[in-house]
Amino acid sequence: MSEQTVASRLEKLGIVLPKASGPAAKYANYVLVNDLLFLAGKGPSGGPKGKLGKDYTTEEGYAFARQAGLEVLAVVQDALGSLDRVKRVVKVQGFIHAADHYEEIHKVLNGFSDLMFEVFGEEKGAHTRSVLGAAALRDQLPVVVDTIFQVEPE
Amino acid sequence: MSEQTVASRLEKLGIVLPKASGPAAKYANYVLVNDLLFLAGKGPSGGPKGKLGKDYTTEEGYAFARQAGLEVLAVVQDALGSLDRVKRVVKVQGFIHAADHYEEIHKVLNGFSDLMFEVFGEEKGAHTRSVLGAAALRDQLPVVVDTIFQVEPE
Amino acid sequence: MSEQTVASRLEKLGIVLPKASGPAAKYANYVLVNDLLFLAGKGPSGGPKGKLGKDYTTEEGYAFARQAGLEVLAVVQDALGSLDRVKRVVKVQGFIHAADHYEEIHKVLNGFSDLMFEVFGEEKGAHTRSVLGAAALRDQLPVVVDTIFQVEPE
Repeated sequence: MSEQTVASRLEKLGIVLPKASGPAAKYANYVLVNDLLFLAGKGPSGGPKGKLGKDYTTEEGYAFARQAGLEVLAVVQDALGSLDRVKRVVKVQGFIHAADHYEEIHKVLNGFSDLMFEVFGEEKGAHTRSVLGAAALRDQLPVVVDTIFQVEPE
Repeated sequence: MSEQTVASRLEKLGIVLPKASGPAAKYANYVLVNDLLFLAGKGPSGGPKGKLGKDYTTEEGYAFARQAGLEVLAVVQDALGSLDRVKRVVKVQGFIHAADHYEEIHKVLNGFSDLMFEVFGEEKGAHTRSVLGAAALRDQLPVVVDTIFQVEPE
Repeated sequence: MSEQTVASRLEKLGIVLPKASGPAAKYANYVLVNDLLFLAGKGPSGGPKGKLGKDYTTEEGYAFARQAGLEVLAVVQDALGSLDRVKRVVKVQGFIHAADHYEEIHKVLNGFSDLMFEVFGEEKGAHTRSVLGAAALRDQLPVVVDTIFQVEPE
């Protein structure tokens, strides 16, 4: 994809990235090791609190995971200067604050995965993932995503 | 180990790998970044549902973790063409669907770890790991393993 | 930082590292892949058992996370010969054994993060992190940390 493509694609999708949120404590938003970009766990903006399968529906969870993905993209852009330097979305682990009986954690994480496909296309956007129900998350967030990207050299 | 060794060892162990299962949604089964192979989370075949310490014993959990390991090996073979290209099993995170009081999550994950030792030997098969009890897993699977391998260049 | 610095800093901080604990089963304490050092999950020494928000306060949890960090440093020193070969603390995932209503898992993990800043300084010590409440942990430990470091070549 050319330098223009991701920005154009975002515009076409009507996506405006949020300002990258800072790390919540004395840690780093990202660490770049060679061509691997490790990110801090990110949740949806606006501070929603609650559990999937109790306080929120799967559709709401999907939207939260997508929002968390936008927060991730904002950090990646901050880290790299341009999303066009993303070579591959490598990995996401999705942590879902889930009620005991809740069965659709993977459908929630699709909100993140679908966003990556939309923004980076199938080749760069296809990533490995795992998902699990967490007994608790920071600030009672419903979703947190923990991500790794591969980047093009500068 | 020579090109023959892992295949021979599997045969000697009476292990027939399953066909690599596809990713359950629009994501990737694996992503190779330089010599690190990241895999999607994999569970046991056959779709067992339930919790360790409630629906399943530790022995059953051990067998599930071993089966998840076979699913992982099937993907690695698919990715690399041959398991002989595995240089090192780097990491496993074991997510165990566990009842509140259940104390043997590490014994469950041994089913995965023991398989890696059997298949790759001590030098290549010894890996780092962590294990945690999940409040929920995809499709109510009892065990999911999230793995990273180091591979020999082609 | 010079060869002396980390050791001096530890002394100044009054920190004596424990002897590196062995892996609890047939797996590896660490795996070095190029310049990435992956570690096995480590908990606090002494085998405390219980949940944050039920058996332990946040302050106790913070101390456990710090102790887990010391166990991590002992393994890193064992792996590298010297902590001065740490180029960057890359990542920590904190797994907190938490009661259902417990909201301060991130404050618990600060015990690990603060230690990394004290020992390695801001530039090398600043790391990405994520934290989640686990339904169960190995041996009912209250905290387990799963870490990745970047190391200087030998």
